[in-house]
Amino acid sequence: MVIVATRRWQPLIADFEAVLDPNRVVRRKEELLVYECDGLTSYRQRPAIVVLPRTTEEVAAAVKICDRYQVPFVTRGAGTGLSGGALPIEDCVLIVTACMRQILEIDYDNQRVVVQPGVINNWVTEAVSGAGFYYAPDPSSQSVCSVGGNVAENSGGVHCLKYGVTTNHVLGLKLVLPNGDVIEVGGTVPETPGYDLTGLFVGSEGTLGIVTEITLKILKSPESVQVLLADFASVEAAGATVSDIIGAGIIPAGMEMMDNFSINAVEDVVATNCYPRDAIAILLIEIDGATAEVAAHAAEIEALCYKNGARQITVAIAPEDRLRLWKGRKAAFAAMGKLSPDYYVQDGVIPRTQLPRVLQEIEALGQKHGYRVANVFHAGDGNLHPLILYDNSVPGELEAVEALGGDILKLCVQVGGSISGEHGIGADKRCYMPDMFSAADLETMQWVRHSFNPKGLANPTKIFPTPRTCGEAANVSIRVNDLIERF
Amino acid sequence: MVIVATRRWQPLIADFEAVLDPNRVVRRKEELLVYECDGLTSYRQRPAIVVLPRTTEEVAAAVKICDRYQVPFVTRGAGTGLSGGALPIEDCVLIVTACMRQILEIDYDNQRVVVQPGVINNWVTEAVSGAGFYYAPDPSSQSVCSVGGNVAENSGGVHCLKYGVTTNHVLGLKLVLPNGDVIEVGGTVPETPGYDLTGLFVGSEGTLGIVTEITLKILKSPESVQVLLADFASVEAAGATVSDIIGAGIIPAGMEMMDNFSINAVEDVVATNCYPRDAIAILLIEIDGATAEVAAHAAEIEALCYKNGARQITVAIAPEDRLRLWKGRKAAFAAMGKLSPDYYVQDGVIPRTQLPRVLQEIEALGQKHGYRVANVFHAGDGNLHPLILYDNSVPGELEAVEALGGDILKLCVQVGGSISGEHGIGADKRCYMPDMFSAADLETMQWVRHSFNPKGLANPTKIFPTPRTCGEAANVSIRVNDLIERF
Repeated sequence: MVIVATRRWQPLIADFEAVLDPNRVVRRKEELLVYECDGLTSYRQRPAIVVLPRTTEEVAAAVKICDRYQVPFVTRGAGTGLSGGALPIEDCVLIVTACMRQILEIDYDNQRVVVQPGVINNWVTEAVSGAGFYYAPDPSSQSVCSVGGNVAENSGGVHCLKYGVTTNHVLGLKLVLPNGDVIEVGGTVPETPGYDLTGLFVGSEGTLGIVTEITLKILKSPESVQVLLADFASVEAAGATVSDIIGAGIIPAGMEMMDNFSINAVEDVVATNCYPRDAIAILLIEIDGATAEVAAHAAEIEALCYKNGARQITVAIAPEDRLRLWKGRKAAFAAMGKLSPDYYVQDGVIPRTQLPRVLQEIEALGQKHGYRVANVFHAGDGNLHPLILYDNSVPGELEAVEALGGDILKLCVQVGGSISGEHGIGADKRCYMPDMFSAADLETMQWVRHSFNPKGLANPTKIFPTPRTCGEAANVSIRVNDLIERF
Repeated sequence: MVIVATRRWQPLIADFEAVLDPNRVVRRKEELLVYECDGLTSYRQRPAIVVLPRTTEEVAAAVKICDRYQVPFVTRGAGTGLSGGALPIEDCVLIVTACMRQILEIDYDNQRVVVQPGVINNWVTEAVSGAGFYYAPDPSSQSVCSVGGNVAENSGGVHCLKYGVTTNHVLGLKLVLPNGDVIEVGGTVPETPGYDLTGLFVGSEGTLGIVTEITLKILKSPESVQVLLADFASVEAAGATVSDIIGAGIIPAGMEMMDNFSINAVEDVVATNCYPRDAIAILLIEIDGATAEVAAHAAEIEALCYKNGARQITVAIAPEDRLRLWKGRKAAFAAMGKLSPDYYVQDGVIPRTQLPRVLQEIEALGQKHGYRVANVFHAGDGNLHPLILYDNSVPGELEAVEALGGDILKLCVQVGGSISGEHGIGADKRCYMPDMFSAADLETMQWVRHSFNPKGLANPTKIFPTPRTCGEAANVSIRVNDLIERF
């Protein structure tokens, strides 16, 4: 048995074991291994200790111990995040919410549920679907990712085009501040006065505290749903169709685009047998709502697809047919994993009108850097997911791929977009924050961070560029001493 | 000519006149009079100086002068706010955005407009309606209130049931921090990484800085709109109908309730001749969307109204007919002004399911305190607007009416609601914040305030209870020295 913790960790371990069942205080090397990375597998760092609290009180007690010993802590949900938000830092305590899996309250009359952060995203819908409700935000990882992680990263998903991302569905939070105090923000009704701290916490990637209870909005399941698959001979035609549909005042529940490479990758691996292998781009368009509305919108969308040169349209109404059309899209990332030893996913956002131009430029950037880039993404909200295929075992490839990813993000910013749509900044993209924000903008965010987290113990080094992590970004970093002087 | 400013204001005035056209630096007593209060007319305080900047640079210059002289400043838009958010404090500079009335950019392709804060709410829709778009948040004061004020108070309106309040329609902000620095938050695409400072600023009531440019989302005008007026013999029946409609998965664009007293007040004053004077409650329900959907929903809503005992339903489809049905609702507050020397409006939120019970208890509270309470409100989102009729010229009536208003807000909190839906806290409701938030919750908001506003110059005394303003709330106030020690 190898115990990693050196003598200096013994007092912490003793304190953790005084407030948590000892089998939920992990410090054996082989057990710590699984916590070395999240979904951004190219970075790894072993935490010193992992604790698995079950209640708000246990989280608060664990945080107070970290505060007392001045040890940084990182929070981890299901560990599926793609930007390294839950990546441990050296000599940290990793607080894992995987044992906080209770659905605490379901209130159909007021359309809300209260969950612990470790509850898996699609458990929420499973719990309420019998009564005709569902929880709208649906990351592709929804069968494994946790609601707490969704809150930390403000996760999106296919249905966020019409229904908004996680922040639009969180009514209130109970949370543990970095000093161990417990507060409640937001409430059970949609609007509460005072500062919108709920909105501030959603997407703060564990840097302001730990969420321990989440009040979510649930929606009535739509009366009718249709999925259309339209086959285009060019990306421009598919892009123009996206703009035309939105321009016609129709907001589909989801509108996804896949390029030829992705289509073939998916057909090779999961064989849906319904994606046309010779299409240059396909659109998968889901519409939902009242039956009359869905029928009217479907007809209008079909007409707009044909107007833009669609070669064929497949319509699915029965649940099993719809699932078949979605199967390839949902399996796309996994299919890339079968075709290439590794892939690096980016997550940029662009104004919809720039779709054809940006996709062409991404293609050119890929060729310049010598890497294949597949595109599978939320076209309706301009949220790109370029998948760069590479081999991490070849020295230098990761760095080259990261440089290509950075060029793609800079392109998104140049056309008026954003360096993240739904995956967060985490450890992966902090160096690009100065491309998007001025020094004064970043400094203002640091004020906020510092006001919650004055000792800098909650998920340090994440989101913001620091001289140590990003050489070129040193000019925008804030020294805590400077901040202290300002107060 | 009476000039209020004493000698100690002369250096500030000279500095303001160096950066602003002197006729936009107001200090004559008779000119200052109009700035003594906002829409909460029961409180008045004359500012020392009023300045009217035209650009972000002029706002920044004015704020830097306040910072240099350590003089507090209050920001005012159109002055229509109902919670005293723009009420001056003693010896303050009032920064008025009424001269910042440019619509700076309209981008139909990406469905957004950029406006200065003094732009009047319905100018936005007027500017884009020709191209088939509109701006959704529609406070009743929309023909006179400014977008900057809407952002400060996170204003709602009739259509917020379906479309959300101001915060759901603001994509980005340019703002001047209390030290005079200019930053930009949010962006032109819906999701941007880092902390959601845009969401934090919306609703911060001028306590974190001054908004000088606002990027708003605009929506496609709906294909079809219908308004239904349903007449009920009891409040319970109308309340049950509201729950049934939402429970059926229909979200109307707006769903308003008026009680018998309000109906008769409106008919006495504006004579719509379409509100049934013997109805105990009416519902005004607007549905919008695709024509097929609207027709289907209208039929379903009519059936639910009749199921709950509606005596009659009037349907309006033509624009002029719809306007006629809305006319009484829009004129309701003004009608009260004709019936009573003064009225005091409250703005509480309750879970929809509590509507019948809470309306009964408000009636009982009114009787207990000896005042008539009219109810005209956003029933769909449980956002009550009890209007208490009184005479401000009778000594003691204002205090009695405020006590009644306080009892109503406490009732809202007791049933799981909120002390403000859309009017903000301002100067009026800060004493009730401890009824809704714990000391730790309020302290966390104060951290945030302090991180932006360390000298406390931006709209001091607003939102948060202080010992000076609320005797009973002294225990939750934070002394700035305590905060400084924490950092």
